[in-house]
Amino acid sequence: MADKLETPLLDTITSPEDIRALPQEDLRQLADELRAEMIDAVSVTGGHLGAGLGVVELTVAIHAIFNTPDDRLIWDVGHQAYPHKIVTGRRDRIRTLRQKDGLSGFTRRAESEYDAFGAGHSSTSISAGLGMAVAAELQGQPRRVISVIGDGAMSAGMAYEAMNNAGTMDARLIVILNDNDMSIAPPTGAMSAYLARLVSGPVYRNMRETAKSLARRLPPFFHEPARRTEEFARSFFTGGTLFEELGFYYVGPIDGHNLDHLLPVLENVRDSETGPILVHVVTKKGKGYAPAEDSADKYHGVSKFNVITGAQAKAPSNAPSYTSVFAESLIQEAEQDPRIVAVTAAMPSGTGLDKFAKAFADRIYDVGIAEQHAVTFAAGLAADGMRPFAAIYSTFLQRAYDQVIHDVAIQNLPVRFAIDRAGYVGADGPTHAGNYDAAYLGAIPNMTLMAAADEAELRHMVATAAQHDSGPIAFRYPRGEGRGVEMPERGKVLQIGRGRIVQDGGTIALLSYGTRLGECLAASEQLAALGLNPTVADARFMKPLDREMITNLAQTHDVLVTAEEGSIGGFGAHVATFLANEGLLDGNVRFRPLALPDSFVEQASQSDMYAAAGLNARGIVSTALKALGYDDAALKAAYNRIG
Amino acid sequence: MADKLETPLLDTITSPEDIRALPQEDLRQLADELRAEMIDAVSVTGGHLGAGLGVVELTVAIHAIFNTPDDRLIWDVGHQAYPHKIVTGRRDRIRTLRQKDGLSGFTRRAESEYDAFGAGHSSTSISAGLGMAVAAELQGQPRRVISVIGDGAMSAGMAYEAMNNAGTMDARLIVILNDNDMSIAPPTGAMSAYLARLVSGPVYRNMRETAKSLARRLPPFFHEPARRTEEFARSFFTGGTLFEELGFYYVGPIDGHNLDHLLPVLENVRDSETGPILVHVVTKKGKGYAPAEDSADKYHGVSKFNVITGAQAKAPSNAPSYTSVFAESLIQEAEQDPRIVAVTAAMPSGTGLDKFAKAFADRIYDVGIAEQHAVTFAAGLAADGMRPFAAIYSTFLQRAYDQVIHDVAIQNLPVRFAIDRAGYVGADGPTHAGNYDAAYLGAIPNMTLMAAADEAELRHMVATAAQHDSGPIAFRYPRGEGRGVEMPERGKVLQIGRGRIVQDGGTIALLSYGTRLGECLAASEQLAALGLNPTVADARFMKPLDREMITNLAQTHDVLVTAEEGSIGGFGAHVATFLANEGLLDGNVRFRPLALPDSFVEQASQSDMYAAAGLNARGIVSTALKALGYDDAALKAAYNRIG
Repeated sequence: MADKLETPLLDTITSPEDIRALPQEDLRQLADELRAEMIDAVSVTGGHLGAGLGVVELTVAIHAIFNTPDDRLIWDVGHQAYPHKIVTGRRDRIRTLRQKDGLSGFTRRAESEYDAFGAGHSSTSISAGLGMAVAAELQGQPRRVISVIGDGAMSAGMAYEAMNNAGTMDARLIVILNDNDMSIAPPTGAMSAYLARLVSGPVYRNMRETAKSLARRLPPFFHEPARRTEEFARSFFTGGTLFEELGFYYVGPIDGHNLDHLLPVLENVRDSETGPILVHVVTKKGKGYAPAEDSADKYHGVSKFNVITGAQAKAPSNAPSYTSVFAESLIQEAEQDPRIVAVTAAMPSGTGLDKFAKAFADRIYDVGIAEQHAVTFAAGLAADGMRPFAAIYSTFLQRAYDQVIHDVAIQNLPVRFAIDRAGYVGADGPTHAGNYDAAYLGAIPNMTLMAAADEAELRHMVATAAQHDSGPIAFRYPRGEGRGVEMPERGKVLQIGRGRIVQDGGTIALLSYGTRLGECLAASEQLAALGLNPTVADARFMKPLDREMITNLAQTHDVLVTAEEGSIGGFGAHVATFLANEGLLDGNVRFRPLALPDSFVEQASQSDMYAAAGLNARGIVSTALKALGYDDAALKAAYNRIG
Repeated sequence: MADKLETPLLDTITSPEDIRALPQEDLRQLADELRAEMIDAVSVTGGHLGAGLGVVELTVAIHAIFNTPDDRLIWDVGHQAYPHKIVTGRRDRIRTLRQKDGLSGFTRRAESEYDAFGAGHSSTSISAGLGMAVAAELQGQPRRVISVIGDGAMSAGMAYEAMNNAGTMDARLIVILNDNDMSIAPPTGAMSAYLARLVSGPVYRNMRETAKSLARRLPPFFHEPARRTEEFARSFFTGGTLFEELGFYYVGPIDGHNLDHLLPVLENVRDSETGPILVHVVTKKGKGYAPAEDSADKYHGVSKFNVITGAQAKAPSNAPSYTSVFAESLIQEAEQDPRIVAVTAAMPSGTGLDKFAKAFADRIYDVGIAEQHAVTFAAGLAADGMRPFAAIYSTFLQRAYDQVIHDVAIQNLPVRFAIDRAGYVGADGPTHAGNYDAAYLGAIPNMTLMAAADEAELRHMVATAAQHDSGPIAFRYPRGEGRGVEMPERGKVLQIGRGRIVQDGGTIALLSYGTRLGECLAASEQLAALGLNPTVADARFMKPLDREMITNLAQTHDVLVTAEEGSIGGFGAHVATFLANEGLLDGNVRFRPLALPDSFVEQASQSDMYAAAGLNARGIVSTALKALGYDDAALKAAYNRIG
């Protein structure tokens, strides 16, 4: 497919300098070729499609008008930056997107000088841009800073904090609000409604007509931007009071697919000497690719697909995803208990709660990209007798850490945290890694922490959390499919703080927290080939620890290995602290806590990432044998026997 | 003093029911007595004075109009709730405020059914209130929910997230915006400027005249509230467009010290069936107590004081506070290096940066109560070559956890984190405990983490951080005074990842991280009385660990005790993980990691809190001796010898 694509103009672009050298009348064709190239690339790699399609013209226009990379361009979230990557010297690697050793699916400073700030989470760009604008001012540099942020990202408090701060500073920051009326799901909230009113207002409609006639007069306009700046900008004022009240100079709304509108506005904005400016640009997510435009989620994130039909390749599925098991289990519980309600922060589909919404439309709350609020909102629900489940990815729960401590745990309120995407997440890479929750939640008093070893355990943990009214409780589970174990009809309530022995044995004990249980069992099979018969246990709980079981394992084995899908400071660290303080490490057991390496790991398949971390069967075997005293030669011989 | 106070009306109030039984014309006197009682109480205990003085009338009015505790009243931050505590059955204990076993300085659910939601951090009340309003709706209960939030708290993103969510829901939430034009310091930011414009506008001034005449007509008005509701409310509309655009019904601004204004408005709001309402109330922090009104910080937080003169008792100081050492050291560094800039989130005085501001007014940024933005703003500064110090209390840095990971650490940007109030904080209790940073930051790759053992070490760490351009670096230090050690003229740059042996010895090694070093040295003196001569070491770094020093300590001592001012999962857990994985616990050393207990601890003196945690000299001695094999009888004998 790729070699059939004809992109004569795009082929001449090796950097944005080349865009700036083109006559502006050629930019329309460049945008069309860029869009075609992007569709083709993502059809091969999968990834984020809809967002990038929506900003093709914006990408071309920004690089045409601004002097990147000296002018700093910050893409909020970064997943809409594929067209930007193509025109900033990375076209030759664009079909390695999100692959091991390939391009990141987000902006990344280490990848290109054109990526002024890396982002995978949303709503960071105004803060970072303000910092850069202030740095430029302090350094006496005239460079511009442009932050491009989506309307969905505007629901996050951090974007507001940054605007509130920028609005009283003179910093020359340009915020381009890319209003496509949806983030991953259609956005909710008052800000979104406000933007819709701005766009649907009569002034915007008139402005489009005005702009059309303006566009016809463009060439002279371009030759005297300074004189026209004020007049032109004033003609674009159509409201935006809210932004003006927050201290921004507001321009818009502007048709973000019409270069004849975009280019003069950006040029004027570039040459303006005023303080922070917000340019309100209206785009269509998935623009220019019919299957994406017609799809409900605008092809937000896609698998490899057929460019002609838009049909996405689906990997054969062996077991239900953890996400779907969570959703179905929660629906089961909610059928029995009207106190159960669900809270999501703009991820109804990613968390599986879209299914819950179908069953209980009036018992689910999508609060927008607003994790801080989501958690304290759930705390308020719990304080008055509801049983809220806050379903938030591990990586996004970081945004609500203080709320978990201050609003939930100190008051011991029974908020249930369903922590999806725990551990490595594969293609989304380090910005989305769910590696830290065991450590950061483990430090908090009053928390009950569980990790599901498989999809059946997840169902039990949903049931357990539903019944747990004595304080906050969280359960973590990974991205992807379950292990294919038999599913119980209904979840059963687990005893708090009790693990389980999965397999009785001796000499070596493998104690798993979470879905490394599968690898521990595989390790046990490999060890069996050496005549060893390890005990395999599933901790289920990190808080409270099953002290009795862990004491027994330590006292009756020569080697105790823990395995978890998390950073240092989590399960293994808690077990180590317990064992040390009880004097259980003074004796004979050799304790080896296996956790993820203390480094940010670039995207790859989840299994490759865990293998590199030594958290697969082979790594577990190797750790256990070394602890038993095997030297390199003995290890090699052992591997030969295992095969 | 207290027994001279005459409060005949207040003496009849045992609960808000009694307030509601009073004729409304008596409420003015009640407010005056309440103010006098509060001033007297805080003169005895110290604590937050200015905020409470500003809401005396509001407290009386809310309890007079709303059916608390069935109607839910949420005080944002909670430190302005002293008058509320006095009228909700806690007057007899009000002179135990912030003392061990006394009343909390904040609202606290466990303390009273009238404290609907506990808070010590700001900006949580709208989220919690929305959750409660939704719960009431789901349960078919007609109760009202009132959140009282200060204008300073409105700079936090979480307040915006909550408003953005509430603005599109029908929930019957009443937000009272208590606009006193300052939080701890005068607030910054566009929202604050917006509020000032509302208050200074001509309509507000006219409204005050209107309201005065309205007040003269009050009695008949109260008898027909329904008919007048709309008319009255309309007369109060003076703008508030920003809130209206966010979906709130806006009423105000209203003079928050005039009960004749407050009572009818709250009554109307109570009886309104519309969705979220924002009542904008203007108050004066410190109102009614001249020394507070005249003070720059409006007596935000005070020591015990003389009611007549306002003079605060000052404890004799033996050593400079860590906060002031930080500030002076940073000024020293900034004098040499124009790249150094400072960032605070609304705490210029608490962090000592007010001193920095005097020296370098153009190199400090107070971003408001906005920790998320503060950190990513600093990341933007660092990305473009500045050397930002973000000075944020440990407990407030929790608000920016995701930003530390996602915006700083993943990109390895050299943001310097000055983490004040690390460990127990004394009178502010569990909401402000800085116990978790070592665990939550320890999990993050690329971080360099230090803890200062004394004030001289803090000066070195400021110098070390200033020079550290290869990635993020943080240093923690406690509330309060230093140990009185000799101060170096200038800080010296420490070698990254290297600890120091403070005292050479044998058998027992005491390894401190942070200011427990003093107690370790005291423990060493006590052990000397038993003929033991422990090694005492200062880790200085938690990341990277000084592996060589720790290996040596483990290999050459029978017992290794670590001590830190932090939760489980921090320094001791990292040492345990290292030792276990290196096989260093397989041998003879008995390792005992001492950390804070896994519980929230109510307010007391810092030293009492550490003693209870076993983290004083006696606790360290006891741990070491038990590890050496001392049984209870041997311990008792040892204590007798130590004396």
